[in-house]
Amino acid sequence: MLENPNRTELSSLGEFGLIKHLTEKIKIQNASTIKGVGDDSAVIEFKENCTLVSSDMLVEGVHFNLAYCPLKHLGYKAATVNFSDIYAMNGTPRQLLVSIAASNRFSVEALEELYSGILLACENYEVDLAGGDTSTSPSGLILSLTAIGEAVKEEVVYRNTARENDLICVSGDLGAAYIGLQILERENKIFMENPKIQPDLEGHDYVLERQLKPEAGKEVIKTLKKLNIKPTSMIDVSDGLASEIIHLCTQSDKGCSIYEEKIPMDAVSFNEARELGMDATICALNGGEDYELLFTISQMDYEKIKEAKGISVIGHITNKNAGINMISKSGAQLTLTAQGWDAFLKRKEGT
Amino acid sequence: MLENPNRTELSSLGEFGLIKHLTEKIKIQNASTIKGVGDDSAVIEFKENCTLVSSDMLVEGVHFNLAYCPLKHLGYKAATVNFSDIYAMNGTPRQLLVSIAASNRFSVEALEELYSGILLACENYEVDLAGGDTSTSPSGLILSLTAIGEAVKEEVVYRNTARENDLICVSGDLGAAYIGLQILERENKIFMENPKIQPDLEGHDYVLERQLKPEAGKEVIKTLKKLNIKPTSMIDVSDGLASEIIHLCTQSDKGCSIYEEKIPMDAVSFNEARELGMDATICALNGGEDYELLFTISQMDYEKIKEAKGISVIGHITNKNAGINMISKSGAQLTLTAQGWDAFLKRKEGT
Repeated sequence: MLENPNRTELSSLGEFGLIKHLTEKIKIQNASTIKGVGDDSAVIEFKENCTLVSSDMLVEGVHFNLAYCPLKHLGYKAATVNFSDIYAMNGTPRQLLVSIAASNRFSVEALEELYSGILLACENYEVDLAGGDTSTSPSGLILSLTAIGEAVKEEVVYRNTARENDLICVSGDLGAAYIGLQILERENKIFMENPKIQPDLEGHDYVLERQLKPEAGKEVIKTLKKLNIKPTSMIDVSDGLASEIIHLCTQSDKGCSIYEEKIPMDAVSFNEARELGMDATICALNGGEDYELLFTISQMDYEKIKEAKGISVIGHITNKNAGINMISKSGAQLTLTAQGWDAFLKRKEGT
Repeated sequence: MLENPNRTELSSLGEFGLIKHLTEKIKIQNASTIKGVGDDSAVIEFKENCTLVSSDMLVEGVHFNLAYCPLKHLGYKAATVNFSDIYAMNGTPRQLLVSIAASNRFSVEALEELYSGILLACENYEVDLAGGDTSTSPSGLILSLTAIGEAVKEEVVYRNTARENDLICVSGDLGAAYIGLQILERENKIFMENPKIQPDLEGHDYVLERQLKPEAGKEVIKTLKKLNIKPTSMIDVSDGLASEIIHLCTQSDKGCSIYEEKIPMDAVSFNEARELGMDATICALNGGEDYELLFTISQMDYEKIKEAKGISVIGHITNKNAGINMISKSGAQLTLTAQGWDAFLKRKEGT
């Protein structure tokens, strides 16, 4: 990927030339984008609606490994992960600013690949790439994306507004992105030890796609609107279900009970986890990067949601004093702890 | 600075702990900040006004050198540089998102210093720190800031709207920030070669402050409003006067004549440039980082602006075919070229 025979050095274009080259094909799709790339700032007009703004930074060697994450996928994922934050407020992403710092290890063609992924995500989610910054870095690739979205003020859904007895729901299925990462890391390790062995990624399509090309909650938000449900609180699942439930409950000053058997897992993921010697529930609780939406709804909305495709009711909100709990398949009550990504890896290594 | 005996490791707080620690003292100042730090995105309400959004990325070893840029100053500068982009649209900055990636070389106390500078800038410019992202980096410090501002749609001033015969104006004085950088680099070089020699920074207060603690165009925008002048085009001077004039003219499809003798230089800067063996005009044209505002106004506004403190009329817009020119003190007409920062450094080294 970086050994393109037609390699063009970044320095041959210069900063302004590079920005122009990467952004010249952009067509503005949203009426709210008054001015996109090309001035001191983007100009956006949402009229009576609120503006939502969220930033994420992705650093090579920390958040991604280019040995097994193609640049186009990285661009797509960086964008959708940001859109996910806007959907998690019950809003609609409309603009994206992209700041990139790349070392001279990267060619113009490499950044074109990265941008093609970002622009594909923008196309799929009807978002305008409206600005950003491009510079050099002493080593590696750093991305910082800012998603801008709009929402009717009264429809914005926060993290800290879950109420006692509300039902806890989650979209899609959980754990697959983490299992995909384990497969990629395993094959990469084998390849590093013996470069003649080609990576064996066959049959892992679902978990690999969940890791490399996650989608944001556009359809979930549409479904909720169609069902006429406004969640009472919402967050996206970026760090694993346990961490996000703890955020919701802590910020809402509440407790919860969720049921292990209700946590949605794809059958393929479940089997792959077992093959890798992992507990599927732990992957769902602590794996992260699923970018599903976790939200609470009023009990009165249960009839509306129970048949909705791709949404699972996994528990309910309780009094704060009851704690943040999971009822296991065997009926035991366990207190959930925010192990997050790092802690989970540590535990894995320790066992 | 990094050898604090009371050093607290970043890892001791974890990502969420660190964000909480750095942001818990923030008080929201603007009514438009509906939700700041602590949810999936910031929620902002500008009612009938437009939203302006601008991002900048700063990478250690490329944009700053911590050997002579204290972390508090770095934070202040990173914020004001972003606000400058909002003023350059004739808007008012209201919110700031701060994403930081830091290696374990940095302590919690170091990030506190950085944040204290960012928060001081927010206080001075009445901006709310409303979100961002914190993560680790394999090496060095990377900052990505996003400023959000508001403007009445009809009052937004773009780069591409200069008209023939408009007067070209610039605020403050130019070149000092670059001269300050030369002093810092000279003293740092001496220190690296002989650590026993203490840096001699005395008497260079003005140029050092211009380099280390630049201010954004808040007062200029106020002055223009008071004088009832809406510029016909505007840009901030981040890469040097020549580069920015070329942006304005090229994007407006026009030419210009500026007069060397009219370019505002502080007397101290002028003398310091001479002492360093540099041409003061070249510092102003190509030095960059002054963060003054370059703008054009209608000739009809000349009477209003001619007595305005801190604003200089330096030339006028011409037909595109006349080219982008500077009339030197000796009366010669020179075509301006966008040498920018890198090219200028190269030329300096070459002479």
